[in-house]
Amino acid sequence: MGAVDFEVFVHELATVSGQVILPFFRTALGVEDKNKGAVFDPVTAADRAAEQAMRNLIQKTFPQHGIRGEEYGNHNLDAEYLWILDPIDGTKSFIAGLPAWGTLIGLAHHGAPVYGMMHQPFVGERFYGDGMTARYRGPAGPRSLSVRPCATLGEALLMTTSPRLMKETDRARYGEVERQVRLPRYGGDCYAYCMIAAGHVDLVIETELQDYDIAALIPIVEGAGGVITDWEGNPAQGGGRIIAAGDKRVHEQAMKVLADG
Amino acid sequence: MGAVDFEVFVHELATVSGQVILPFFRTALGVEDKNKGAVFDPVTAADRAAEQAMRNLIQKTFPQHGIRGEEYGNHNLDAEYLWILDPIDGTKSFIAGLPAWGTLIGLAHHGAPVYGMMHQPFVGERFYGDGMTARYRGPAGPRSLSVRPCATLGEALLMTTSPRLMKETDRARYGEVERQVRLPRYGGDCYAYCMIAAGHVDLVIETELQDYDIAALIPIVEGAGGVITDWEGNPAQGGGRIIAAGDKRVHEQAMKVLADG
Repeated sequence: MGAVDFEVFVHELATVSGQVILPFFRTALGVEDKNKGAVFDPVTAADRAAEQAMRNLIQKTFPQHGIRGEEYGNHNLDAEYLWILDPIDGTKSFIAGLPAWGTLIGLAHHGAPVYGMMHQPFVGERFYGDGMTARYRGPAGPRSLSVRPCATLGEALLMTTSPRLMKETDRARYGEVERQVRLPRYGGDCYAYCMIAAGHVDLVIETELQDYDIAALIPIVEGAGGVITDWEGNPAQGGGRIIAAGDKRVHEQAMKVLADG
Repeated sequence: MGAVDFEVFVHELATVSGQVILPFFRTALGVEDKNKGAVFDPVTAADRAAEQAMRNLIQKTFPQHGIRGEEYGNHNLDAEYLWILDPIDGTKSFIAGLPAWGTLIGLAHHGAPVYGMMHQPFVGERFYGDGMTARYRGPAGPRSLSVRPCATLGEALLMTTSPRLMKETDRARYGEVERQVRLPRYGGDCYAYCMIAAGHVDLVIETELQDYDIAALIPIVEGAGGVITDWEGNPAQGGGRIIAAGDKRVHEQAMKVLADG
């Protein structure tokens, strides 16, 4: 059974999670829950409710599969197929009411990422891929996703969620790359990787990522023809310090700057 | 004739500009225009085409009105009514394919902002106000916009497009505010002000703004109950160093920190 067979099911997971999340988006923050004596936190509530809904659907449909989620931990991590879920990637955007967050749904087979989707239910768009191809559905119309060429760092549009999230030594190395690119842009979270896949961004450099922040994005970036690794060029699926590029020439040049510090 | 009478017309301007802009969004950058020997720049092309379309509609409907636009300059600046247009606020987001940009349509009467709209045609949402009320239309459903209370800087969610855009002395002062808030978030451009109006963000601090970056946003923020001035507390419509807040207590506290440096 190839990973491609899961496509319909992944769309179903996205639809279900979107329905659960949307009522919490742009909802007043800090409304006190009188019954619990605690402050109501919509992003945490949405994260939990969506992960639970996806876990229920997975366990009903594929009871033998494993699940790794941000909110409810691990189930059957040694299964042949492992679902890796992050219902709201970009919680700061979510909290601020900006639509630059997404739901990440990843599938690994024997530990290797084989399918991934980023779903933005408010905008109504989905980016998804299986490592060989990547596709889009949304207001921009259905289309294949494909990276754009970019020969040098000096031509590159670079994104990172925020240099403030980096450790000091990493921030200095990142800063050296930033000084060499055509245009740096902060913010974006999962959108930055999808924009590499769609051919609008050339380079994403981040640190401190969790595996569930990145697992779903690997088959999208690679499926669109891009490269995604850690800063040492190893597989990205463990998270940590990540570098993604649409063109392997820019990936190599940026890796060299990051290594030289 | 009160400013409120222009509401239908402002929606018409938004619709027309959105139709002109959308074909350029997420279009490949850098396609060479063989006829002109120049690189095709979708954001500039969209900016110009949308401003021209809005100017045409204004001049046909209100030939006596003045127009100030980012791309095509000034027409009849001394008119009783002056339209202030910025077709794409957030060009870096636009270039990167992120939906955090918007079309700004402002109207001033004898120099004072009386009506404003922020339109995001890709997401399909509009924030608009006349200084006394503010409203929303879009995926979150039609609603009134209203700021949220926030008593202290320590509780505030702060946004700024990027500290990198600030001069060094301003960045140091901004940094002191940033250290005192609950959560700072970069990016957003016009969205940050609309999220103050919608009650999701408490404070926006920026510098180096043009008048057309801010004119349309003043009646939205004030219409939702917020405060927007320059860093010295003067009217914001000239641009420059701007501070907006949903709660005047946070506005005062942040102003004091900015003044003390």
